[in-house]
Amino acid sequence: MTVKVAINGYGTIGKRVADAVMKQDDMTISGVVKRRPSFEAFDAVKNGFKFFTTTQEFVSGFQEVGIQPQGTLTDLLAESDIVIDCTPKKQGYKQLYEEHGVKAIWQGGEKHDLTGLSFNSFSNYEDNLGKDYSRVVSCNTTGLCRTLWPLQQEFGIENVLGVMIRRGADPWDSKTGPINAIKPVLKVPSHHGPDVQTVMYGLPIQTTAVAVPSTLMHLHSVVVKLQKPASADTVIGLWDKTSRILFVEGSKGITSTAQIMEYAKDTGYKRSDLMEIAVWKDGVHVVDNTLYYYQAIHQESDVVPENIDCIRALCNTEPDKWKSIEKTNQALGLK
Amino acid sequence: MTVKVAINGYGTIGKRVADAVMKQDDMTISGVVKRRPSFEAFDAVKNGFKFFTTTQEFVSGFQEVGIQPQGTLTDLLAESDIVIDCTPKKQGYKQLYEEHGVKAIWQGGEKHDLTGLSFNSFSNYEDNLGKDYSRVVSCNTTGLCRTLWPLQQEFGIENVLGVMIRRGADPWDSKTGPINAIKPVLKVPSHHGPDVQTVMYGLPIQTTAVAVPSTLMHLHSVVVKLQKPASADTVIGLWDKTSRILFVEGSKGITSTAQIMEYAKDTGYKRSDLMEIAVWKDGVHVVDNTLYYYQAIHQESDVVPENIDCIRALCNTEPDKWKSIEKTNQALGLK
Amino acid sequence: MTVKVAINGYGTIGKRVADAVMKQDDMTISGVVKRRPSFEAFDAVKNGFKFFTTTQEFVSGFQEVGIQPQGTLTDLLAESDIVIDCTPKKQGYKQLYEEHGVKAIWQGGEKHDLTGLSFNSFSNYEDNLGKDYSRVVSCNTTGLCRTLWPLQQEFGIENVLGVMIRRGADPWDSKTGPINAIKPVLKVPSHHGPDVQTVMYGLPIQTTAVAVPSTLMHLHSVVVKLQKPASADTVIGLWDKTSRILFVEGSKGITSTAQIMEYAKDTGYKRSDLMEIAVWKDGVHVVDNTLYYYQAIHQESDVVPENIDCIRALCNTEPDKWKSIEKTNQALGLK
Amino acid sequence: MTVKVAINGYGTIGKRVADAVMKQDDMTISGVVKRRPSFEAFDAVKNGFKFFTTTQEFVSGFQEVGIQPQGTLTDLLAESDIVIDCTPKKQGYKQLYEEHGVKAIWQGGEKHDLTGLSFNSFSNYEDNLGKDYSRVVSCNTTGLCRTLWPLQQEFGIENVLGVMIRRGADPWDSKTGPINAIKPVLKVPSHHGPDVQTVMYGLPIQTTAVAVPSTLMHLHSVVVKLQKPASADTVIGLWDKTSRILFVEGSKGITSTAQIMEYAKDTGYKRSDLMEIAVWKDGVHVVDNTLYYYQAIHQESDVVPENIDCIRALCNTEPDKWKSIEKTNQALGLK
Repeated sequence: MTVKVAINGYGTIGKRVADAVMKQDDMTISGVVKRRPSFEAFDAVKNGFKFFTTTQEFVSGFQEVGIQPQGTLTDLLAESDIVIDCTPKKQGYKQLYEEHGVKAIWQGGEKHDLTGLSFNSFSNYEDNLGKDYSRVVSCNTTGLCRTLWPLQQEFGIENVLGVMIRRGADPWDSKTGPINAIKPVLKVPSHHGPDVQTVMYGLPIQTTAVAVPSTLMHLHSVVVKLQKPASADTVIGLWDKTSRILFVEGSKGITSTAQIMEYAKDTGYKRSDLMEIAVWKDGVHVVDNTLYYYQAIHQESDVVPENIDCIRALCNTEPDKWKSIEKTNQALGLK
Repeated sequence: MTVKVAINGYGTIGKRVADAVMKQDDMTISGVVKRRPSFEAFDAVKNGFKFFTTTQEFVSGFQEVGIQPQGTLTDLLAESDIVIDCTPKKQGYKQLYEEHGVKAIWQGGEKHDLTGLSFNSFSNYEDNLGKDYSRVVSCNTTGLCRTLWPLQQEFGIENVLGVMIRRGADPWDSKTGPINAIKPVLKVPSHHGPDVQTVMYGLPIQTTAVAVPSTLMHLHSVVVKLQKPASADTVIGLWDKTSRILFVEGSKGITSTAQIMEYAKDTGYKRSDLMEIAVWKDGVHVVDNTLYYYQAIHQESDVVPENIDCIRALCNTEPDKWKSIEKTNQALGLK
Repeated sequence: MTVKVAINGYGTIGKRVADAVMKQDDMTISGVVKRRPSFEAFDAVKNGFKFFTTTQEFVSGFQEVGIQPQGTLTDLLAESDIVIDCTPKKQGYKQLYEEHGVKAIWQGGEKHDLTGLSFNSFSNYEDNLGKDYSRVVSCNTTGLCRTLWPLQQEFGIENVLGVMIRRGADPWDSKTGPINAIKPVLKVPSHHGPDVQTVMYGLPIQTTAVAVPSTLMHLHSVVVKLQKPASADTVIGLWDKTSRILFVEGSKGITSTAQIMEYAKDTGYKRSDLMEIAVWKDGVHVVDNTLYYYQAIHQESDVVPENIDCIRALCNTEPDKWKSIEKTNQALGLK
Repeated sequence: MTVKVAINGYGTIGKRVADAVMKQDDMTISGVVKRRPSFEAFDAVKNGFKFFTTTQEFVSGFQEVGIQPQGTLTDLLAESDIVIDCTPKKQGYKQLYEEHGVKAIWQGGEKHDLTGLSFNSFSNYEDNLGKDYSRVVSCNTTGLCRTLWPLQQEFGIENVLGVMIRRGADPWDSKTGPINAIKPVLKVPSHHGPDVQTVMYGLPIQTTAVAVPSTLMHLHSVVVKLQKPASADTVIGLWDKTSRILFVEGSKGITSTAQIMEYAKDTGYKRSDLMEIAVWKDGVHVVDNTLYYYQAIHQESDVVPENIDCIRALCNTEPDKWKSIEKTNQALGLK
């Protein structure tokens, strides 16, 4: 069976998931939906995707710039098995999806309550098998799960403190700041800790967060009290066996998120994406069973493989999480 | 006795300490030293300070721009009781000071080893009484001591984790970046934790640090495990009684370091400085005896009152730390 | 006669004009109006200004944080001769001012059409004498007039091209970007050229503009074709005699807007403001009767002296522009 | 004949030229040289390039990280017809190249005097035919030539004013600022005007420049007085026929350099490069025979096709510039 995947919202995440779906042999893009005729709409058409608008009222806007939509979201749902909702949060499409009997996956901007079920490939794939609606947790949460889940399996986790130094805006966003300020999230815990707990149930984690004037990546300073003895080497060895984690090294000139993104450019992924979580190998330290590490998150792409896995889980086309992870990694060229 | 204070290095810190000394009734500026005729040299002259160069070879550079130095550092030392060394680190003036029998205070950029003695007004004033050489700990370390020391006295501290989100460069510095990156200090602990321990002996503290593209202030996300029960209110009450701490509130529109600096502008301090440590009142949280808070550090000015106190300690003109702190605060208009 | 001046909108410009009015001997602040209880409201109260809200509905918001407004804008207008409207653009207060027979001055964010009359101290003070409503042109336009008007008087201007490199957001603004982009104004001319023409009638000027990720100052690269022969020295000599222009020099270490703002800090103006236009002396060049120069504009404060002069012009308390300019300069400590 | 091309300096430009050479059918990479074992060295090896160090003393540095160089620069020169020198400026390799009888191309960071000959594909390809040493002009100069040369051919140019708003640092560079300042080049003309004249002989052009806190692209605000009548449409039509120019439109959401780079990501070029010059179609205006336009320059890649053409010119493997340009464009997927 080839799963027919609709993309509602062909923007930062939507266009990346669309490309990733096309690289799989068990799913295909049935069409993509966009509301406004920005340059990304032309990209969608150039890529050969069937193109739809949200509703009839947006059709003329596209026609004016020479794009003829093949219908609206409703038309697309009729031809799809599942929809990846990459629209801005709280757009309220769930009812429409229900009416058309189409499964749906939301992104981390949406609240867990919408679906009552969230998704991470490693920590709770099985709980998503055959379900109708789920939510792939946010880029930051996905990043935390990638490194914490193997630690939990191997060493046990007493507690976690994560300080998220968040990029202020995405690279394409020239409206949002701050230009020259550091902005703390005054609520403690920040939403990241509870969000991790939607997929790593009961994990004792606290998080604080600040936003800074950078567009490239989020950076996490993470402190984990482990239950069993560990050393920097055993932790590095563990993550080395884990997929979707990439080591970088200050001693090789990667001293900031800037050089990580330059490294990603050299690898030649489309859009210079980095779907792996970058962990500084020479920033991993263990002091008295407490692990300190830094990781950097490419907010625009790290959730892409998780979206692919989530499609398989919901559509029940692959019951074994490790097989899905491996299949996705192969198709996307990930470690 | 009026202590005669020389300033060696009339830059970011030097010019501020000079102004602060002039506001005290028990000390005066004997002269200031500068190496190169930048605009700050003109400011020094305009302010009426006796102006000296480092050595004879730098005299002509000043004469060319119309400034006639009154001599060199050596000349100034002969007329001074103590010198505040605000030169870049590792300039090696200590021997010269010793030869002239002049006491000296270095800044936090210098290593503790140079003096074997460091200074914070609250935590170890007494240990500095009558000593010849000391070092006022750095802006970040001073900021940590301001909030941690009262906590230690009142509740006892089990351990501290401080994550320093550091400004990449000072506001006047247009050469240093990063422009668009987040840069972790891969060494753990960063130098801040051990630096705190030079004035709060034996405090169990770990620190990590990242640099970000902002010039305004450092921001600390601090987590303190307390030994006695506390609540956000009792902690706030404690800090409210402590001097050199200023509360700011997100709910009153101070949501980032940008608005703190705007607040400082409104207060009317010279140079729009903020010598107090700014703590977000609505960012103070206690969960299970663990305290979470955010504080912001005006890197250019927070150590100024500590320098004044340190002069009194070394010159033994005021044996009681609380009297010195109170005297300094009064003169500088601090809480 | 002491002119009673109301400030409607106690924000970036309003608070500065209020302070400046209080330094004059022929005008006073009758009260200030603010809509929301941000930290600047507390500053207004602390400064001893009579405090009003916009309308009755906003009273409770202030009472909740412990500020008791003395009435609303309407109450304040009854006690005032003139109002400085520093509210965001298009708030539509003009009718209210008319009903209360109060003169009014708007800021450059407002369109010229609102008043049909704009103001610059040097170029058209006389045309504003005794009028009811005027508009002080924007910070950028004021900056252009400061340097262009004397050139026009002395050498005649064939044409002007100004390229405005605009700061993306004010220093206190942590919401607006861009963080990492350069953003051109695609309309040519940008609004600056026509805006200059509202006070320097018929001046042949073209302007283009880009926004950049900086908060400190606007920078102008200006090219002027002069009608009479000139040299860099004669131009510098001319501006040297002109008030509200300050020379800075790259050779003295002022190589960017960052060092200009540091210089302003050292001068000790409240809020570290720089009401003068900063012109790089070593950036002034004349090639074949074409003048090239760079100037930097402190967007938050350069229009403050013009607001003071405009009050005198509209209230007809000083018919001679040079006397008003001199009086304002003296009171504010300007050259 | 397949030209054997050595790359001395495998960094920002070097690695891109290496990739571009490999896409041509008339040239190949004989090897690449790097001094220090940064992450880009690993990339070179992974890409299958023969890898050399500068001199013997740098060999051990690579061996320590597991890279075995195949020799030094001298060894590589023996196997090469031409070397692309992408080392930092003033490294002084020219004598070595002469000794080995190898032709050489430098980049725009180097001074024209080194070679006495510079290169732009459109304006002076012929003058480079068969020569031994040339210099591809800088990214900014190349960008100016791309749009100015066709204007000169079609309409004649009376004079040009270019204001360069330069990115402060490259995206991978986390050391260089400014973080929050605008920094003018006080010398007028900036070096860009004279640099254009090394390849468009005698063009009447003046340039000024400022550096800003952005890493993405340079932006030019250009004003051209044309000799023959033109309209925005005829200019756009002309550039539309010209290769290596790409139109972008604010009305399609490309309002800053940020969205241009996002567009480049979508196109799928390796490293998300944009070798074309981006001109805002809706920013082209003609007023009284004076043309105003904005263009953006991807500083890391726009000179890559010119380097390829320059190899053909110096090695005399293609005497017709249009054939070389077409060949390069085809191979690199350029318009």
